[in-house]
Amino acid sequence: MTEYDLDWIISVDDHVIEPPHVWQEYVPAKFRDRAPRMTFDDGAELWHWDGKVYPTSGMNAAAGRDREQFSPLPLTYEEMRPGCYDPKARVEDMDRDHVLASMPFPTFPRFAGPLFSECADRDLGLACIQAYNNWMIDEWCGSAPGRFIPLVVVPLWDGHLAAQEVERCAAKGAKAITFPELTAPLGLPSLHDPNRHWDPLFAALQDTGMPVCTHIGSSSQLPTTAPDAPLIVPTAMAVMNSQLACADWLYSGVFLRFPDLKLCLSEGGIGWIPYILERLDHVVETQRAWVTKKMELDFSTGSVVQMGDAVHVDGMDPYAVLPSQLFRDHVYGCFIQDEYGAANIDRIGARNIMIEVDYPHTDCTWPNSLEIAHRALAGCTDEQQWLILQGNARRVFDFEPAAPPA
Amino acid sequence: MTEYDLDWIISVDDHVIEPPHVWQEYVPAKFRDRAPRMTFDDGAELWHWDGKVYPTSGMNAAAGRDREQFSPLPLTYEEMRPGCYDPKARVEDMDRDHVLASMPFPTFPRFAGPLFSECADRDLGLACIQAYNNWMIDEWCGSAPGRFIPLVVVPLWDGHLAAQEVERCAAKGAKAITFPELTAPLGLPSLHDPNRHWDPLFAALQDTGMPVCTHIGSSSQLPTTAPDAPLIVPTAMAVMNSQLACADWLYSGVFLRFPDLKLCLSEGGIGWIPYILERLDHVVETQRAWVTKKMELDFSTGSVVQMGDAVHVDGMDPYAVLPSQLFRDHVYGCFIQDEYGAANIDRIGARNIMIEVDYPHTDCTWPNSLEIAHRALAGCTDEQQWLILQGNARRVFDFEPAAPPA
Repeated sequence: MTEYDLDWIISVDDHVIEPPHVWQEYVPAKFRDRAPRMTFDDGAELWHWDGKVYPTSGMNAAAGRDREQFSPLPLTYEEMRPGCYDPKARVEDMDRDHVLASMPFPTFPRFAGPLFSECADRDLGLACIQAYNNWMIDEWCGSAPGRFIPLVVVPLWDGHLAAQEVERCAAKGAKAITFPELTAPLGLPSLHDPNRHWDPLFAALQDTGMPVCTHIGSSSQLPTTAPDAPLIVPTAMAVMNSQLACADWLYSGVFLRFPDLKLCLSEGGIGWIPYILERLDHVVETQRAWVTKKMELDFSTGSVVQMGDAVHVDGMDPYAVLPSQLFRDHVYGCFIQDEYGAANIDRIGARNIMIEVDYPHTDCTWPNSLEIAHRALAGCTDEQQWLILQGNARRVFDFEPAAPPA
Repeated sequence: MTEYDLDWIISVDDHVIEPPHVWQEYVPAKFRDRAPRMTFDDGAELWHWDGKVYPTSGMNAAAGRDREQFSPLPLTYEEMRPGCYDPKARVEDMDRDHVLASMPFPTFPRFAGPLFSECADRDLGLACIQAYNNWMIDEWCGSAPGRFIPLVVVPLWDGHLAAQEVERCAAKGAKAITFPELTAPLGLPSLHDPNRHWDPLFAALQDTGMPVCTHIGSSSQLPTTAPDAPLIVPTAMAVMNSQLACADWLYSGVFLRFPDLKLCLSEGGIGWIPYILERLDHVVETQRAWVTKKMELDFSTGSVVQMGDAVHVDGMDPYAVLPSQLFRDHVYGCFIQDEYGAANIDRIGARNIMIEVDYPHTDCTWPNSLEIAHRALAGCTDEQQWLILQGNARRVFDFEPAAPPA
């Protein structure tokens, strides 16, 4: 037996397939008619919400299937592994995989939950968000104490409401929020919003110690090269959104204004991190004289229309601390499998990396997660392995898991 | 003395600032009135072309300036180092920097020369392209044989015309073309175009042995996060276009159809390469069953509208060879400074990496390029250093440099 328990892992990125009762049971009675409900007709299982019909996707419930069977065509609950939608079955699948604890992201509301923030009826939208959070904390996580890290959704249209939901959920035991990797593509204010849309939320997160988790794909857009590019291009390059998000946060000044805020780049991979940090630092160090100024450019002729003073954020120089230092103090790279990143852990920093299983998605390592993780981390010290497999997740999410099953 | 000459480097990415006479002297007489010309009024030096006025940019002529002076505001020729626009002065600056040979990209026509392809008068556009190429080959490169690798611009609106220009220039000694990192953002057909717009060009490049060089920024758009993101975000993240271009080429099937074609990712950096190749391979290996099919998705509900057969390109499976293998056989990563990439050369492959100086841009290593390159490659064998500093450029561009100056 080693000093560190390296036989169990904490996965900071998995997914639930919400069972049909979530919103019908958890919204207040007056919203029930309009809350998401599922119909079961002729073998088709369909969500109904806000005038639209949503099928399930086989991509979201692939655990236990062969690669040859992967498909975005719908699956019925009957066809899925019960671990997709049933927390008791999930824990059994986690035990088999040596996953001590898991942090599950939503599916039907999309990874950062924007579905309910897109609803014109704000009261209904908020009721559905709170229903999800109550179900996640009380029923899913509550069914197996210490085995799940409760991750919640927030209303995105109002920073104050979002802050209230964070405080409400923190009091119930929530440990993190899911947040879009980029907000502007969803029609929401950016991190640079002069009206500081997100400030109340970030203040509440800082006060409650809850990190922001930005899952790839959560901006509901994928980077691609051309309208006629084959589907494999955006599928593979989805990971670039994590690089963009990382740059955006590190250049935004948010971490200077909220010095205790933490960001997890969920399913973002890690092999790119030293490259991007080196690049972000280099641009600050080399181009500071012009690029940190307010500027209007006419790209059609390369003209400088206007060049103003240096950008300041609340009186601070947002580039006073190098991005690589802000990363070490605030940001966590999360990976499922990433051979190149695993070979460069010393450069990324073992305290800034957490492991993921991604159950039950097509990229998941279940049921061989522990073995795959050990192989990836073979070159690390025991302490580094401990940090990546468990230690960082305990610290970052202020989470004490249950004792490992006997 | 070592077996390899490691005292001189071949830089595969530099830039010329075109002197005022290029188009006025090199277009046929009938186009002279409408060809780009420069005016010198009240100290302002301005290009006039196709009804628009273009200033110079201090970012393009920064060699020899302190970082504190970097600015996109215009510079006059008088204020620039003569090496920016005068090939004799350039060679002197190269000698001082231990640069044996250099491959310069255009400035006024933009890095991949789309300016002249945007002109409604195709005859005029072609005349300006040919004028640039003749000036580059005959005057700039001709002034110092063996010291410059001639890189030419092609008409982008017609693949057959582009092929003819490649053949014409190859006969005059050209060694490569500059090509947009992504063509769709310029309103041009993509690599996936069912009408095979680029095929005649690619066939001519293959026949003449000339690589395609895709310089960052050459698609005239930069990746960013939000409309109100500060300028530093797209400035830093410009390098992501190289990752997108790499994925696009490797997934396009072009290298299966043109097995001798070569691609250089100019100024694309190298630290990201193993990460992206691992990702591209992983998606092919894991998701092949669905992602390689023709598919129409409704992203608003996650529905599969239509799923067809597997994509084929000229009867071939474009994913029959893994992207990482296609990269080794066809693609070259090019870097100025990239500590992370340099530490991972064994993973990228020393035969697939070339060095750049980027004279006279703000990122250039002049006049310390040799020292900086030696420091970056300190962990490499002599053979690896030779390949990256000179050997690969000689082979990839079929270029024999002059003997080093005494």
